[in-house]
Amino acid sequence: MKNLEAQPCLIARSLSLVGDAWSMLILRDAHSGLTRFDQFRRSLGIVPTMLTKRLAALTQDGLLETRRYNDRPPRDEYVLTQSGRDYLPVLLAIQGWGQAHCNASDVTRFLDDETGIEIEPVMIDKHTGAPIGTRAIRITA
Amino acid sequence: MKNLEAQPCLIARSLSLVGDAWSMLILRDAHSGLTRFDQFRRSLGIVPTMLTKRLAALTQDGLLETRRYNDRPPRDEYVLTQSGRDYLPVLLAIQGWGQAHCNASDVTRFLDDETGIEIEPVMIDKHTGAPIGTRAIRITA
Repeated sequence: MKNLEAQPCLIARSLSLVGDAWSMLILRDAHSGLTRFDQFRRSLGIVPTMLTKRLAALTQDGLLETRRYNDRPPRDEYVLTQSGRDYLPVLLAIQGWGQAHCNASDVTRFLDDETGIEIEPVMIDKHTGAPIGTRAIRITA
Repeated sequence: MKNLEAQPCLIARSLSLVGDAWSMLILRDAHSGLTRFDQFRRSLGIVPTMLTKRLAALTQDGLLETRRYNDRPPRDEYVLTQSGRDYLPVLLAIQGWGQAHCNASDVTRFLDDETGIEIEPVMIDKHTGAPIGTRAIRITA
């Protein structure tokens, strides 16, 4: 999609970098520990040329970085950068919406590793502490 | 993208309904008060056939509903349902990622209407109160 990065809106600019389901699912898999091309390919059932393209874009845009894990033949794996790690709240927000509005039977669940309780993602405003959607928002240019 | 709705993952199932930049930007515009076809078209610079398709899908999937605003000729506008309103945390999470990782100059800002302070979206786990990413997560089938 063209020109999104030039829009005066951070949502549009963000979507110009990560704005399709494949890219988001690659980031999901990277957060669950996958790093190698074949792992992503099997997990996603994605056409290899498409996966190559998406991994290259996520690397160029700074969400993933390559790490050499084999010298002969040369093989790189893909690991999350800080920017990629910071994408986790987006994935959890999508998960949270799905909990309420998709068929939630037979799905993987995200548990707090220490308490074992399923994570219930809530987006709050750091300043007021109030959940997003409970207070009026004003949008300014 | 096919078969996402059959994956045992709510992120995939959610992305099978809202999984492209146009749909997310339509929801962004709906949250900022736009309701009519021509408003979305002007805001997004989207090809009309594409906009028609996306609005129909979001309506069929229950994030938007149509409301008749003119009888002769018949004209419908598109308003958020509860499901569509619940999508706001996803948009704010994307906005929050953009604040940290995109060019944030000359952008629209989301202010708390009462305090006038820019919203800083933070995703927390309702049970622990901890920001997502600060505690270990376990994924279970």
